[in-house]
Amino acid sequence: MKERGLLIVFSGPSGVGKGTVRKEIFDTPNHAFEYSVSATTRAPRAGEVDGVDYHFISKEAFEEKIKNNQMLEYAQYVDNYYGTPLDYVNKTLDEGKDVFLEIEVQGAAQIKEKVPDGLFIFLAPPNLDELKARIIGRGTDAPDVIEARMQTAKKEIEMITLYDYAVVNDEVQLAAERVKQIVSAEHFRVNRVMDKYQQMINNFTK
Amino acid sequence: MKERGLLIVFSGPSGVGKGTVRKEIFDTPNHAFEYSVSATTRAPRAGEVDGVDYHFISKEAFEEKIKNNQMLEYAQYVDNYYGTPLDYVNKTLDEGKDVFLEIEVQGAAQIKEKVPDGLFIFLAPPNLDELKARIIGRGTDAPDVIEARMQTAKKEIEMITLYDYAVVNDEVQLAAERVKQIVSAEHFRVNRVMDKYQQMINNFTK
Repeated sequence: MKERGLLIVFSGPSGVGKGTVRKEIFDTPNHAFEYSVSATTRAPRAGEVDGVDYHFISKEAFEEKIKNNQMLEYAQYVDNYYGTPLDYVNKTLDEGKDVFLEIEVQGAAQIKEKVPDGLFIFLAPPNLDELKARIIGRGTDAPDVIEARMQTAKKEIEMITLYDYAVVNDEVQLAAERVKQIVSAEHFRVNRVMDKYQQMINNFTK
Repeated sequence: MKERGLLIVFSGPSGVGKGTVRKEIFDTPNHAFEYSVSATTRAPRAGEVDGVDYHFISKEAFEEKIKNNQMLEYAQYVDNYYGTPLDYVNKTLDEGKDVFLEIEVQGAAQIKEKVPDGLFIFLAPPNLDELKARIIGRGTDAPDVIEARMQTAKKEIEMITLYDYAVVNDEVQLAAERVKQIVSAEHFRVNRVMDKYQQMINNFTK
């Protein structure tokens, strides 16, 4: 029997650099997991490819999936749905491959309830002042929005107890390396490999 | 405040190759932990150095340490005591350094009771037939002793549930690499770093 893959849930506050670290992980050859492409009901932007950047589906199709419990997690922003379709995740895990999700903290909390034995990794800023500087640096948010984001970030960091590991994004390469080490090590957790050792004992008859 | 070091307890059945993997770990430059030298009441063998191979102490001194709870674990074999003195371990952990213990399964079980938040890593054979072949290969044991060792090994593998991780010793270099990955990853476990993130929130006042 093939060992089932790990569901890796990679999350952290908005602005912390999840996407950059995820890209760094997937750009290096020595990773061994599959990236789960999210589904959305928003229209593709210029250059976005269906099935690569997102699975672009209709609002009706998305709501049908929600109703049939076919979304591992989802959220609604500005009239559009974003979420993780369950079918791809389950199929890939069944093939013995690890699946990597990069999602918002609220989505991670939804998954924690459904898949408690997933591997939950939190990406944290070096400190909150630096997070604030990064959000300001993006130049997209008004001061009151920035203030609201910081309050959310604080609450999200308090949700760290839902996670198994927390990695600081002080340097993108270092953070990516840490995530890869965590995933490698997790494959040796006793609760994940116990059956194998029970079999070892059973198979020894001499 | 300096973060306290990790107590790494590395164990596994007799004959599995704990010493060889430990030497491989310590022979490579990219490890960052201290090896805890055991104490014993047996006489030094030719070439053995006090404080390097063992702390050679008298039976009276050893029993005094047991009485005063100054042994993290100990066992008696053929009239001699072997054990891990607590003072060195605590001093090194307080300095923020990780301490690496390579000990027998019974000793590891003693430590698990005293230091439940230690990092317990089990070294397993690829399978029990291979373990038996290795023990026979050493040429030191009579057939009935080998049989007894195999029964003990089976019981020890069943104690795997006391451990956090299990690593197969299929190849010494691979096994050593896995142990190092596990130790690196463990430093990012949320239950070990939670205080740091609570401080991050407290330190942010803007």
